[in-house]
Amino acid sequence: MRNLTLLTDLYQLTMGYGFYKNGKHEEIVTFDLFFRRRELITYSIAAGLEQAMDYLLHWHFDEEDIAYLRGLNLFDEGFLQYLKEMRFTGDVYAVREGEPVFPGEPILTIKAPLIQAQFAETALLNIINHQTLIATKSSKITRATNGTGAVMEFGLRRAQGPDAGIYGARAAIIGGASSTSNVLAGQMFNIPVAGTMAHSFVMDYPTEYEAFRAYANAYPDSCMLLVDTYDTLRSGVPNAIKVFQELKAEGHTPKGIRLDSGDLAYLSKQARQMLDEAGFPEAKICVSGDLDERLINSLLQQGAKIDSWGIGTKLITSEDLPSLGGVYKLSSILNEDGTSTPKIKLSDNHAKITNPGFKDLYRLYDRETGMAGADLITLKEEVIDDSKPLTIFHPVETWKQHEVENFRVEKLQHTIVKDGQLVYTFPTLQEVQEFSKNQLSKFWEEYLRLDLPQLYKVDLSNGLHALKFGMIDNIRQTNAKKGKKYE
Amino acid sequence: MRNLTLLTDLYQLTMGYGFYKNGKHEEIVTFDLFFRRRELITYSIAAGLEQAMDYLLHWHFDEEDIAYLRGLNLFDEGFLQYLKEMRFTGDVYAVREGEPVFPGEPILTIKAPLIQAQFAETALLNIINHQTLIATKSSKITRATNGTGAVMEFGLRRAQGPDAGIYGARAAIIGGASSTSNVLAGQMFNIPVAGTMAHSFVMDYPTEYEAFRAYANAYPDSCMLLVDTYDTLRSGVPNAIKVFQELKAEGHTPKGIRLDSGDLAYLSKQARQMLDEAGFPEAKICVSGDLDERLINSLLQQGAKIDSWGIGTKLITSEDLPSLGGVYKLSSILNEDGTSTPKIKLSDNHAKITNPGFKDLYRLYDRETGMAGADLITLKEEVIDDSKPLTIFHPVETWKQHEVENFRVEKLQHTIVKDGQLVYTFPTLQEVQEFSKNQLSKFWEEYLRLDLPQLYKVDLSNGLHALKFGMIDNIRQTNAKKGKKYE
Repeated sequence: MRNLTLLTDLYQLTMGYGFYKNGKHEEIVTFDLFFRRRELITYSIAAGLEQAMDYLLHWHFDEEDIAYLRGLNLFDEGFLQYLKEMRFTGDVYAVREGEPVFPGEPILTIKAPLIQAQFAETALLNIINHQTLIATKSSKITRATNGTGAVMEFGLRRAQGPDAGIYGARAAIIGGASSTSNVLAGQMFNIPVAGTMAHSFVMDYPTEYEAFRAYANAYPDSCMLLVDTYDTLRSGVPNAIKVFQELKAEGHTPKGIRLDSGDLAYLSKQARQMLDEAGFPEAKICVSGDLDERLINSLLQQGAKIDSWGIGTKLITSEDLPSLGGVYKLSSILNEDGTSTPKIKLSDNHAKITNPGFKDLYRLYDRETGMAGADLITLKEEVIDDSKPLTIFHPVETWKQHEVENFRVEKLQHTIVKDGQLVYTFPTLQEVQEFSKNQLSKFWEEYLRLDLPQLYKVDLSNGLHALKFGMIDNIRQTNAKKGKKYE
Repeated sequence: MRNLTLLTDLYQLTMGYGFYKNGKHEEIVTFDLFFRRRELITYSIAAGLEQAMDYLLHWHFDEEDIAYLRGLNLFDEGFLQYLKEMRFTGDVYAVREGEPVFPGEPILTIKAPLIQAQFAETALLNIINHQTLIATKSSKITRATNGTGAVMEFGLRRAQGPDAGIYGARAAIIGGASSTSNVLAGQMFNIPVAGTMAHSFVMDYPTEYEAFRAYANAYPDSCMLLVDTYDTLRSGVPNAIKVFQELKAEGHTPKGIRLDSGDLAYLSKQARQMLDEAGFPEAKICVSGDLDERLINSLLQQGAKIDSWGIGTKLITSEDLPSLGGVYKLSSILNEDGTSTPKIKLSDNHAKITNPGFKDLYRLYDRETGMAGADLITLKEEVIDDSKPLTIFHPVETWKQHEVENFRVEKLQHTIVKDGQLVYTFPTLQEVQEFSKNQLSKFWEEYLRLDLPQLYKVDLSNGLHALKFGMIDNIRQTNAKKGKKYE
C-alpha cells in the first residue's frame, strides 16, 4: 500500500504547527463535511467512505516524510517528533456509502483533537468529493437507461490519472453501473469486467470478416463484434451476421454487436431488424460513444433498440460538472468542563453561512406512503420524537417553517470510528449498490428528475435553528454596539 | 511502487488473446497517440511522458494478476504464461514534455509487437491525456496572469482522486505554475510547496486578532494572513496590519495577506491602499477562489492589485474541458520482408480519418523571425530539406497547399525507448517548465489567444499526403467496383 500520509495541503501542517506552538493542538473539536448547493446537483450518492477511512486509520509519517518536512525549514524538532507519533484517535460519524444526500447535510462529522481533525481535511475531501461525484453521475446515467440494459463503465483512458480510473470505476458501480472495462478495478473491488474489441483489431486484418472470424475463434461463445470500423450497415452488420451463422452452425451462441459511432438511434433500429431477420433475435446491441444521461434519454425517446450501454468520458470525468463543492468546516470546540463552544462561519453570501454545533442527521419518512419527506439536521443531543408533530425550519429563509406529522424517523449518520478504532463493517460493493438503489426508490421522482426538480427539504431542528440564528443575532448586535470601522 | 500493470481495459487482453490464438501477436506494428481537435483546445502542452514510460518499462503480471486473469475464464494457460513473461521490447518516439503540440500530431509513436503495442494503449492514454490536459490549463492560466505574480496550485481537495492531485500538480508546474499546496507532490517531484491558513484556523480563536497573532508567533517571517473570515476591510485587513506592526517592531518582515472571497478587484485595490498607508508597501496580496484564465484577465483589466494567485478547482479538474480527446491508432504493419502495410481508419467524419504509415513530426521555423510557422507530419523515411522551398498539404482539405521557404526545420519526436530500453534522460521538472516556456515564446500570440485564435498549421508532407489520399481513392474505387449493398 502506498503511504499517502502527505496527501495534504501544506497549510494543514503550518496551521498544525501554529496550534502546537500555541498549545491548542489537542483541544477537542468537531468538523462537518458537506456539499454546497450547485447547479446540476439535485441529489448526490455518497461514496468514498471506505477509502477515506483507510487513509485516516493508516496515516503515519515515516522517516522519509519527516526528513522531507524537516527540509522545508518550517517546523521545529519537537513538532516533527509529535507528527511522527501522531495517529488518528478521534471519532467519525458518517452516512453510509450509497446513501442519497443533499446539499448542506453533514455527511461526515469528525470529533478529534484539533491538529488531527484539521490535518484530515484535505484527503477526506479529495476522496469523498471524487467518489461522490462519479457515483452521482453514474446514478443519473443508470436511471436514464430506464431498465433497458446494463451500464458498462468504459472511461479509463480519459480518466484524470490512474486513481480517477480505479476509484471512479468503484464509484460508478455504487451509482448503478453493472461492470467496468478497468481490469485493475475489477481485481481490487471484485467488480465484473467487460469489454469487446477495438477498431485496431479490425484494422489489423486484411478484411473485416477475417477480423471477426479471428475474434470468434478465440471467443466463440462470447464474441461481441464491433461493426462500425468501415461501414456499419453495408459491411459491419452483414459481416457479423455471416460469422454468427458460422458460429451457430458450429453449435455456439453469438453474443452481439457494438456500435461506437454514427446515429445510434437509426443504426440500432436498422441493425436490430437485420439481426432479427437473419435469425438472431437474441443477439445484443451494445452502444458507446460520448453518451451521457441526456443523450440516452433522447435515443430512447426515438425508439433506439439498445441492450447495453458503454459509457466513457462523460461518466468517468463527470464532464458537465467535474467537481463537487465539498467543504469541511469547524462546527464546535468541546471544552474540558463538558460544555461546548459552537462555531459559525459568516459570509455575505447567506448560503455560505455554516451550521454551528456538534450535529446529527435524520430522514423523515411519511408513514402512509413510506416515502422520504424531508431531511433534518439536528444538534447531536436532540431527540427526535416521531410520535408527535414536529416543526422544522428552513436553513436560510428563516420565515419558512413546516410542520410534519405521521412520520417515521431514520438516523442517517452512523458511528464508523470510535477513539481511533474502526467500529463499522464495510459492506461489499454489491451490497452498497443494492442499498443505494433501495434508498433511492424511497424518493418521489419529482425530487430526482434532471430538469428543474422539486427541491427536497433539508431543514433544521428547533434546537439547531435557535442556536444558529441566536449566534447570528448576537454577532450582529456586537458589531452594531462597536459601531466602529476597525475592530 | 504500486503494480499498475492491470490498469488496462479488458478488451486489450481479449484482443491480445485473439491475436495470440491466431498467431498474429508478434507482428511488428506502429501506433500513434494524438489529440483530436476540440473546441477550447488551441494548443496543448505535452506532459506525462515520464510516468507513461514508467508504466511501460515496469509492466509485469505478477502471480496475483495471473491468478485473477485465470479466474475470469477468458484465457488459456499458454496465454497466461505468455503474459507472465511479457515485457515491453519495442521502440517509443515522442515529443518532449513541455512541448506545445497541436491536434492531429503524433505526439507519441510506438513500434512494437502487436500484443504489446495494443496492451500499452489504455495506460498511455490515461496518463498522457491527464497530464497534458492539466499542463495545458495551467499554461493558459499562467499566461493570463501576465507576469503579475506566481501561480500556486491549490486544488488537491477537489481533484478527481489522489493521483489527479499528485500528477495534476506535476502537470501544473510544467504549464507554468510556481508551486503547489500538495505536500506529497512536493516531496515526489521536488516542487516548491506553498500555503497559508484556512478559515478554520481563524475561527478556532475567540477573535480574528488572536488567530493572526498566534499564526505570527509560529511564522513571524513568513505569515500570510487570511483576512476574509468575518469582514475583509473592516476587520481582516486592519487586524492583519495590527499584527504586521507588532511583527515589525519585533524586527520581522511580514509577508502579506490572502483574499479568498468577495470582489477580488475591489478588495485588492482597497487592501493595497490600506497596507501602503500603514507602511507595508512590500506586503503581498494573494488571491484565491474559483479563479481561471478568464476571471484573471477580467480582474487585471479592472486594475486589481494582486501579487500571487492561488488556483484550485478550475485548474486541477480543467473544469471547462475535463478531458482531452487523446486517441491511439494503428498506423502500419511492418512486414518481415522489410516492406510495410500502412493502415488507415476511415470515418464519415473526415476529421476522424487517421494518417497512415510509420510517421515523424517536424516544426518549421521562419529563418527571419525565428518564429514557428507550421508543423509537418511526414513518413519516417522522408527527409525534409530546409535548404529549398517545400510544399505542404492540409490534412483534410485537399485543395489547400502551401509553399514555405526560408525556414529551419526541427524534429519534434525524440527516441525515448529503443528495444525496450530507456535511451533518454528525463529532464528535471524545472527544466521541463523552462523548456516549455521557451518553446511557447516561439509562437505568435495570434496562435495562442483564448478567443478565436488563428489556426496553427499542421500539414502533411508530400509523401504522407500522397499515401493517405492514394489509400482513400483506392478504397473508394474498390467500393464502387463492388457496387453491392453487402460486402
